[in-house]
Amino acid sequence: VRIKKPTMIIDRPLTIKKIEWMANKARASNVRFRPHFKTHQSAEIGNWFKKYNVSSIAVSSVDMAIYFAENGWNDIMICTPTNIHQIDQINKLAEQIELHALVDSLETTEKLGNEMQNDLNVWIEIDVGYKRTGVPSIRIGDIKNIAKSIQKKPYLLFAGIITHAGHAYHAHSINEIITIYQDSIKQLSAIREALLSEGHSDIQVSIGDTPTCSLIERFEKPITEIRPGNFVFYDLIQLNIGSCKENDISMTIACPVISKHPERNELVIYGGGASLSKEGISHEKYGTIHGLICLPDNKKGRTNSIKDVYISSLSQEHGKIKGPPEFIEKVKIGDILLVLPVHACQAAILHAKYQTFEGQIFPKFRA
Amino acid sequence: VRIKKPTMIIDRPLTIKKIEWMANKARASNVRFRPHFKTHQSAEIGNWFKKYNVSSIAVSSVDMAIYFAENGWNDIMICTPTNIHQIDQINKLAEQIELHALVDSLETTEKLGNEMQNDLNVWIEIDVGYKRTGVPSIRIGDIKNIAKSIQKKPYLLFAGIITHAGHAYHAHSINEIITIYQDSIKQLSAIREALLSEGHSDIQVSIGDTPTCSLIERFEKPITEIRPGNFVFYDLIQLNIGSCKENDISMTIACPVISKHPERNELVIYGGGASLSKEGISHEKYGTIHGLICLPDNKKGRTNSIKDVYISSLSQEHGKIKGPPEFIEKVKIGDILLVLPVHACQAAILHAKYQTFEGQIFPKFRA
Repeated sequence: VRIKKPTMIIDRPLTIKKIEWMANKARASNVRFRPHFKTHQSAEIGNWFKKYNVSSIAVSSVDMAIYFAENGWNDIMICTPTNIHQIDQINKLAEQIELHALVDSLETTEKLGNEMQNDLNVWIEIDVGYKRTGVPSIRIGDIKNIAKSIQKKPYLLFAGIITHAGHAYHAHSINEIITIYQDSIKQLSAIREALLSEGHSDIQVSIGDTPTCSLIERFEKPITEIRPGNFVFYDLIQLNIGSCKENDISMTIACPVISKHPERNELVIYGGGASLSKEGISHEKYGTIHGLICLPDNKKGRTNSIKDVYISSLSQEHGKIKGPPEFIEKVKIGDILLVLPVHACQAAILHAKYQTFEGQIFPKFRA
Repeated sequence: VRIKKPTMIIDRPLTIKKIEWMANKARASNVRFRPHFKTHQSAEIGNWFKKYNVSSIAVSSVDMAIYFAENGWNDIMICTPTNIHQIDQINKLAEQIELHALVDSLETTEKLGNEMQNDLNVWIEIDVGYKRTGVPSIRIGDIKNIAKSIQKKPYLLFAGIITHAGHAYHAHSINEIITIYQDSIKQLSAIREALLSEGHSDIQVSIGDTPTCSLIERFEKPITEIRPGNFVFYDLIQLNIGSCKENDISMTIACPVISKHPERNELVIYGGGASLSKEGISHEKYGTIHGLICLPDNKKGRTNSIKDVYISSLSQEHGKIKGPPEFIEKVKIGDILLVLPVHACQAAILHAKYQTFEGQIFPKFRA
């Protein structure tokens, strides 16, 4: 399929291989695999999971939950602290499917409990060190109070505890990830014990971040569920952390060359913040970069990234590429370059559809 | 209108006031006002310009040109070096409207000239120091050759020279902007003279960047056209440069509070990279920030930004806000906060529609 403008391209076989790998890993540890679909946001890619017996998913908004419910998913977790302005929609959706919601405050729990008219699985979000959302794990009293409040409400079912160890994204080695993982387990175990001692039973424990789920081989007790999302594509952030190898990255954005500046060893592609997002990543040699560059390859879809070629800056529709003279000389205006994105989730948000190397085109969710 | 989730809100009267101001400024200098519509990307906001006799616009992609042509605009400039993969579409559009395209290479000019079947106004993009696209202004020979090539092609009409002094975005004072502006004028004048001496006549000169167009009071010869875009909203980047005051910013993103953490003076809003973009800006006191925070105000739409309250980090759907204890204490879960965005253009890309403070809702273009 001829590329005419910035186009999000997915390596389908590689993506499916990773889905199978993660599903097998979850099965071997006897934990539920609840992939986070906020990364790809696509019904078609969702279908690729079904072959591996995935029936539970996570999403990051009510709108995304509605989209996947409409596309046949019956067990969906909305993985952000419940927004009390959307309880109406949550209530409607809970009538149709097995819906899971997160709380990290008594206020939200009470309001949710008072307004729901359909069964809702409620999870308490625990902060194990990321310091974004969740009740800090040391506040056992608060956690117990929220659990009590859930149990008193007729339509709220206390499902368990959940965490996102987002601080794993700041790790720079496998050892750091393992330390974060083990520390999370310790905190979650303590909370689970405390809740069991209060008479709560069947407390599920859900963890989910791509670095941990990629690098930990076996998930131990008390984990009952994992929710990685980004692994389905991977990107330069994950490559930098060490969660993946470059060959594991299955998203590229194909962009045509529109301007050449050999006098300063630069090219410009049609492909800027509007197709790649403006996220940057620190590169040891080049400072902040916005993507690495590969070439199309008839057999493998794309080559490896080309040494010393990178996106040095972005504006809305322009991407400036720097590279060695021999590369810049060779590339012609109109040539298609493939960008390995800094952050796949953020790049995906900008696109209405995906295309595979084989030419399959399919739409995705957009807020 | 009740806000339930991250919603892009436009201050309509303020936006219109700025449109009038810029239109008057262009008129006083006797230059054409060709606003860049890549910022708002909306037919409705486009209509607000018509009252001020605007009939020529700039856009940043062929798709956006098609959108505005469908919405009644008959004089459109595609303000990126022409993408040779889209000549078919350009040709079709040129049959319907007065279309303007940019070139910065002989290769693209030749290909465009060989394939066009309808009249196309062609501008040579000049690089006056931004070093993104455009022929460097010192390469007078190359510029002359491109102009010659345009004139030889039956459907290409040589319109003039155009520049985007994007390096003005890195300025930190009005004096720096004035220096960049004066330096641009000098370079463009020299090129114009060189082209006139070759026998080209009626050479238009188009400039356009929001810092320059905001801060320069009178546009002098040889400028015939200005193309500011971002001024229609402004944002924290422009505030930082000094192009505007905070009161001039007419875009905010309304976001509900979903999580409170008074123990660390933090709140979390539903509103992350998916609604605000991940762009950050360096703040003298707080390092990289991702937005300032205002409160809704019944009369004025929003208050001024609250002192020492800012977005310290973003994930896909979460925005973490830091602030003084007295602010954090006061805010309740469910409250709506208004974010002044770092970069209005990049935030706009993420939204399918706008809402005004008065409750008018209207769609916008999306790629």
